[in-house]
Amino acid sequence: MAVQVEKWDVFELVLMGPQAGNPFIDISLSATFTQADRSLRVGGFYDGDGCYKIRFMPEVEGEWSYVTSSNGAGLDGVCGSFVCTSPSVNNHGPVRVANQFHFAHADGTSYIPVGTTCYVWNLQGDPLEEQTLRTLDAAPFNKMRMCVFPKRYTFNSNEPPSYPFPAKFVGELKSSWSREMVEAYYNQQPPDYWDWDRFNPEYFQHLEKRILDLCERGIEADLIIFHPYDYGAWGFDRMPAAVNDRLLHYLVARLASFRNIWWSFANEYDLFIGRTMEDWDHYMQLVQQIDPYDHLRSIHNCLSFYDHTKPWVTHCSIQNWNMYRVHVWRKMYGKPVVIDECCYEGNINMLWGDLSAEKMVHRFWTGFVQGGYVGHGETYTNEREELWWSKGGELVGQSPERIAFLRKIFESAPDIQPVEKMDGEFVNLMETGGGRPFIRGTQAIDTIMAEGPWNCTAGGFHEDDYFIFYFGSHQPGFRHFNLPEGASFRVDVIDTWNMTIECFAESASGPITIPMPTRQYMAIRIQKN
Amino acid sequence: MAVQVEKWDVFELVLMGPQAGNPFIDISLSATFTQADRSLRVGGFYDGDGCYKIRFMPEVEGEWSYVTSSNGAGLDGVCGSFVCTSPSVNNHGPVRVANQFHFAHADGTSYIPVGTTCYVWNLQGDPLEEQTLRTLDAAPFNKMRMCVFPKRYTFNSNEPPSYPFPAKFVGELKSSWSREMVEAYYNQQPPDYWDWDRFNPEYFQHLEKRILDLCERGIEADLIIFHPYDYGAWGFDRMPAAVNDRLLHYLVARLASFRNIWWSFANEYDLFIGRTMEDWDHYMQLVQQIDPYDHLRSIHNCLSFYDHTKPWVTHCSIQNWNMYRVHVWRKMYGKPVVIDECCYEGNINMLWGDLSAEKMVHRFWTGFVQGGYVGHGETYTNEREELWWSKGGELVGQSPERIAFLRKIFESAPDIQPVEKMDGEFVNLMETGGGRPFIRGTQAIDTIMAEGPWNCTAGGFHEDDYFIFYFGSHQPGFRHFNLPEGASFRVDVIDTWNMTIECFAESASGPITIPMPTRQYMAIRIQKN
Repeated sequence: MAVQVEKWDVFELVLMGPQAGNPFIDISLSATFTQADRSLRVGGFYDGDGCYKIRFMPEVEGEWSYVTSSNGAGLDGVCGSFVCTSPSVNNHGPVRVANQFHFAHADGTSYIPVGTTCYVWNLQGDPLEEQTLRTLDAAPFNKMRMCVFPKRYTFNSNEPPSYPFPAKFVGELKSSWSREMVEAYYNQQPPDYWDWDRFNPEYFQHLEKRILDLCERGIEADLIIFHPYDYGAWGFDRMPAAVNDRLLHYLVARLASFRNIWWSFANEYDLFIGRTMEDWDHYMQLVQQIDPYDHLRSIHNCLSFYDHTKPWVTHCSIQNWNMYRVHVWRKMYGKPVVIDECCYEGNINMLWGDLSAEKMVHRFWTGFVQGGYVGHGETYTNEREELWWSKGGELVGQSPERIAFLRKIFESAPDIQPVEKMDGEFVNLMETGGGRPFIRGTQAIDTIMAEGPWNCTAGGFHEDDYFIFYFGSHQPGFRHFNLPEGASFRVDVIDTWNMTIECFAESASGPITIPMPTRQYMAIRIQKN
Repeated sequence: MAVQVEKWDVFELVLMGPQAGNPFIDISLSATFTQADRSLRVGGFYDGDGCYKIRFMPEVEGEWSYVTSSNGAGLDGVCGSFVCTSPSVNNHGPVRVANQFHFAHADGTSYIPVGTTCYVWNLQGDPLEEQTLRTLDAAPFNKMRMCVFPKRYTFNSNEPPSYPFPAKFVGELKSSWSREMVEAYYNQQPPDYWDWDRFNPEYFQHLEKRILDLCERGIEADLIIFHPYDYGAWGFDRMPAAVNDRLLHYLVARLASFRNIWWSFANEYDLFIGRTMEDWDHYMQLVQQIDPYDHLRSIHNCLSFYDHTKPWVTHCSIQNWNMYRVHVWRKMYGKPVVIDECCYEGNINMLWGDLSAEKMVHRFWTGFVQGGYVGHGETYTNEREELWWSKGGELVGQSPERIAFLRKIFESAPDIQPVEKMDGEFVNLMETGGGRPFIRGTQAIDTIMAEGPWNCTAGGFHEDDYFIFYFGSHQPGFRHFNLPEGASFRVDVIDTWNMTIECFAESASGPITIPMPTRQYMAIRIQKN
């Protein structure tokens, strides 16, 4: 009976080959997978102990055949076939951009990214990693930002269980960093602890195990390939250029067949020293070229935005604190806007990690009602120095349950486009003297908003059938709307903090006045019946 | 015995003169006041019923003499003298700009403006006006924004008890406005209800009575001369140019001798239709020229800032919602920054009037710690349509008592300069790619802030002896500071919402870690002993 693999699952071919020399560099291996007139070439990789692997994610049902190509003894010309069956019920395929500003799985199921961040949760040892998975089981998140490399930073002084490269010499690993250390570090030559010509398969095996743990839970792995938080501990932020490229090939060969992979080329790319914009362009173009499945590609800023209009960027991965700008970024970049870092709920000694739960939830709502996607992180201190944002573990904050409430609301909404020129833009206009804040148009949203630009701090809509307005720190006692005559609308008043939805009218039309409770963090949702 | 007038009080000379013709235009009247080698020329005004008045505010103690000059029978060449005595205990003289960015009374007493707005409280009839005064007695405000003219707007449909001009024809006064009405109005000729060539003394007598009521209470009257909220009711927003000028002369003659007068040339000058920037420049220059006491002069925007660097502007009177920009405005304009409108605490159906008390207090703190001065207003609906922001009456919000707490703190602080390039600027940098957010300098503030730009959302300091940091929606569990060695500092943790001050250390120096309660709206104050 033929091998069966369900659509968007992994077909893996394991071959034994040469162990002598340096298999990572000496041996080339690929396979061509063919179905009817469709043919894809896929790179293989060396997994240690003479074991070579080729992984393939079939995107079309039916019989596939393959044949390998290699310069290694026993690895060339191996051929075979398998049958790709229909996907199981929870397998919706990889996430793609849909409707320009949104996302959907390959099977058409809508995907509303509600992300969190645990940068190196996969490098904390099994007990904590398994706790993280249990926490995720009860949490609202369906996307995880996580790193390929270990992280050295405040609250991150521990060594990973293993390293991505075999050690040549493990010197004194710095356990924390100071301004002076960083300066000294960047005046040094690159460290020379590692055999840059080989990978440590054990390290990557564990990484992929954790990515598959997420996949089982329906969580996308937004994999951060490079990050600058090394500070002399290991030197992974300043590897030779050839090693960076080899890593990209290796990651694609190992991981591209996992349907929940997203490629995030950097965290805070603009904090790297000695890396040019051309380097970043090159990494993204290279992966665009070698990833047979065209997984999502993004790059995350600290201060300076990458130019997300570049064609190899599939969506914006933004760090910023001003969610009122979501509608501007959508217009600027013409792509989905994911704000992966808007600060973290927590109480550490940095502004980016001491946001109140109220404000975190506020930023989520401000972004989501404009058709953007805001991400979560948590940085409450504890004696174990296990902060969710970096190591995973447990969540203690008050925002996740509100984010779960929000997720339900937006998963039941159509694709939203933003009301433009609201609060955030208004502030800018006031400073620059750019004229009136709000040009009334001919769209349904303009008709409905009886108070014009004064209606809400942020809002969004879908055609003439869905409208959502958010009030943030404003606390109206009432609001007027002009619903179109000749159609009937359900009107709900939502308390985003207390997580209640109160129906004002099941069937309304024409001018209405909605009483509201003079409380912060309220929203109004108007849906055509 | 000689007439005695205390310094900065009003000497008033009353003369009877012609009633025939039009005394407002036909009769010119002024007086020259002389003391030693000092001499000032002051305009008089007609107060009706044949009564002419000349008012003078002596700014120097000792004997003053005067002589009048007029073309009116019995008004010319009148002379006399009075003695200017030292001021009484609560009389500190008019407020002036001090130390470039701050204010002080003429006697050197520091003045921290903590303003509120009741645009037309003086036009509501005595019962409500007296209630307003009782409310002010218990409120923390020492500056009141109020208008010369009545106001027609949402929640402002009532007629004033009298009008500033004698009526020629009182047609149908519109009781509310709509978009269509406004458009129709601006297509009309100017209304012709009034005898523009005369003032109604009764109207101005009442205005000055209320200004003096404020003066008795130590409240500065930030008098808004023109405003655009007329909407066809009376046409006071579109008077003939000669009438505008005549009004300015009349106001100066009547009111400039009141020590608590500030001239605010417009509310939302940029919302006037058919008024040029040259018109506004002219009004301000004219008053600068004719006001013998050089009272403070400002002009308030809606969207587009006036160029506050113009030399006749004494301080910025700003409408804006982003208090993080205070340090930028200070640098831009080089003058005191008063944010007279940052939205109002309330619950009406407009974003500018439905701010939560939490956010109002938050904006006060954000502005004040940067050495700016934020103003209050309140717009809670009630059945009487008596909203504080316009009519006065009672205050029901939760911000005034917190503003009282804030006032005490800043009245006991030295003049503060802002920590620059914090949150607000940082947001802009993140968008424009302008580089690192924070350039560490050599000032004491840079030394103290152990976390650099991540330390607080807004902060300020005075030399090396006073530092104040505010955290807003951030909720640190602790903060590090590097206090200079060799000096001792008192360190307090302030809960701006719950109005508590907890002393962390009475005498600290060197590196310190301040535990904080993981709550929003906290501040840290560090004062040299």
